[in-house]
Amino acid sequence: MTTPTGFVSETPLRVRYAETDAMGIVHHTAYIVWFEAGRSDWMRQRGYSYANFEKAGYLLPLSEVGARFMLPARYDEEVVVRSWVAELRSRKLTFHYEVVRDGAVLVTGFSTHIVTDRDGRVTTFPPHVRQLLAAGT
Amino acid sequence: MTTPTGFVSETPLRVRYAETDAMGIVHHTAYIVWFEAGRSDWMRQRGYSYANFEKAGYLLPLSEVGARFMLPARYDEEVVVRSWVAELRSRKLTFHYEVVRDGAVLVTGFSTHIVTDRDGRVTTFPPHVRQLLAAGT
Amino acid sequence: MTTPTGFVSETPLRVRYAETDAMGIVHHTAYIVWFEAGRSDWMRQRGYSYANFEKAGYLLPLSEVGARFMLPARYDEEVVVRSWVAELRSRKLTFHYEVVRDGAVLVTGFSTHIVTDRDGRVTTFPPHVRQLLAAGT
Amino acid sequence: MTTPTGFVSETPLRVRYAETDAMGIVHHTAYIVWFEAGRSDWMRQRGYSYANFEKAGYLLPLSEVGARFMLPARYDEEVVVRSWVAELRSRKLTFHYEVVRDGAVLVTGFSTHIVTDRDGRVTTFPPHVRQLLAAGT
Repeated sequence: MTTPTGFVSETPLRVRYAETDAMGIVHHTAYIVWFEAGRSDWMRQRGYSYANFEKAGYLLPLSEVGARFMLPARYDEEVVVRSWVAELRSRKLTFHYEVVRDGAVLVTGFSTHIVTDRDGRVTTFPPHVRQLLAAGT
Repeated sequence: MTTPTGFVSETPLRVRYAETDAMGIVHHTAYIVWFEAGRSDWMRQRGYSYANFEKAGYLLPLSEVGARFMLPARYDEEVVVRSWVAELRSRKLTFHYEVVRDGAVLVTGFSTHIVTDRDGRVTTFPPHVRQLLAAGT
Repeated sequence: MTTPTGFVSETPLRVRYAETDAMGIVHHTAYIVWFEAGRSDWMRQRGYSYANFEKAGYLLPLSEVGARFMLPARYDEEVVVRSWVAELRSRKLTFHYEVVRDGAVLVTGFSTHIVTDRDGRVTTFPPHVRQLLAAGT
Repeated sequence: MTTPTGFVSETPLRVRYAETDAMGIVHHTAYIVWFEAGRSDWMRQRGYSYANFEKAGYLLPLSEVGARFMLPARYDEEVVVRSWVAELRSRKLTFHYEVVRDGAVLVTGFSTHIVTDRDGRVTTFPPHVRQLLAAGT
């Protein structure tokens, strides 16, 4: 994990029962859903929601995702997802994430996205979006 | 629950770990996802997959869903979803479901769907689809 | 749906991308997960979290669930889950729910729960929990 | 990704509607749930199901997961999850996965697991389980 250098969004979440599994802890895929909520917040707080990005005809599908699990979260706990942009290129965007609880890092992770049009063809960020994203890195 | 009178599809499924929760049993929403897999199979086996229905410009969003939980399923168990059409109208379709394990009924349920076009406007089944569905009821 | 007569909790949620489906709207099972987040909040706000209830050796598995879908929610929208207790008996508890967006009711629903011990045997609410729940109805 | 050298299990799956998202394709977390179904099958086919492993008092929580997304899967498609053990140590196990459709690789990934007891303390594989796993690598 890189140390965050730019804007870091913080997304507070309360663990849902549906996010737990038979081990009594949060299922590993839930953190990856939380990463998504985290980057949604990051974009919204930078002034350009992903919802608007899609309305403008663009998509940001994942090309890669990864997570390391250090400590488990449990039902009803309050966690915070910290999200930041680790790398921004003309056709590619990488977010890093930390899920923390009371200052302890539970999970770290990243997602790399490519920019496509609605038909899935790889394209570049429109300049004004790239500027908005770059200003936060 | 009505007793099935027409075609009944059977969808075998193995319980995934992600479908369990901290009670150690299958989370109640998983059965409702299985209902969906069940009606997909019912339509495919009747000769008209829901995928084709969507490609033809129609959608079948839910207007109502319900389930009764009698016995829990657990990780790695094999269950079967039995699905049938309980009611077919020009703009509406109701499926009933049973989730069984070794002959024991674990969960029963239903889903009611309306027919819409891609923009969400209520419409009627195209005649050939209605015939296919009716032939199975 | 009954009109709520007792305490009504309000749980604000932002729609996650993972909660949408290929129709472009929120998948029907997501509302049922939100109901769960709603009743968790109701109990917590009444002074007895479901997490504590489980720690004390009790479970509240669902015996029945139902939902009616009037209007779809979409990615990134803010919705509120309103939850209240519609019926409280010695061995059974029924919550009702409304998912609203800007005052419009999108989805209504209910869940009925039985009280069991950790081994799944039906039991009764401990008196102090029953009192806490009853005070909110 | 390593080329598989030992036993490779194949798990056929049909894409569920609930696994799609508003992009019209399978949500990235669904593949990670499929990885889980894949390694469950691998263990079962090697003669020692993960369900039995848990009953014996052991857990295999994830310490790391990763996936690369090359091509999207869509609703109703049939995919196959290929799973194999890439590394086996006394306290650690790494599976690799490929999700394929008609011979095309859609997604690759891995998961690394530690062995713990029911209280989450790191431990070693019991010798007979280690032997069973080793025989498949």
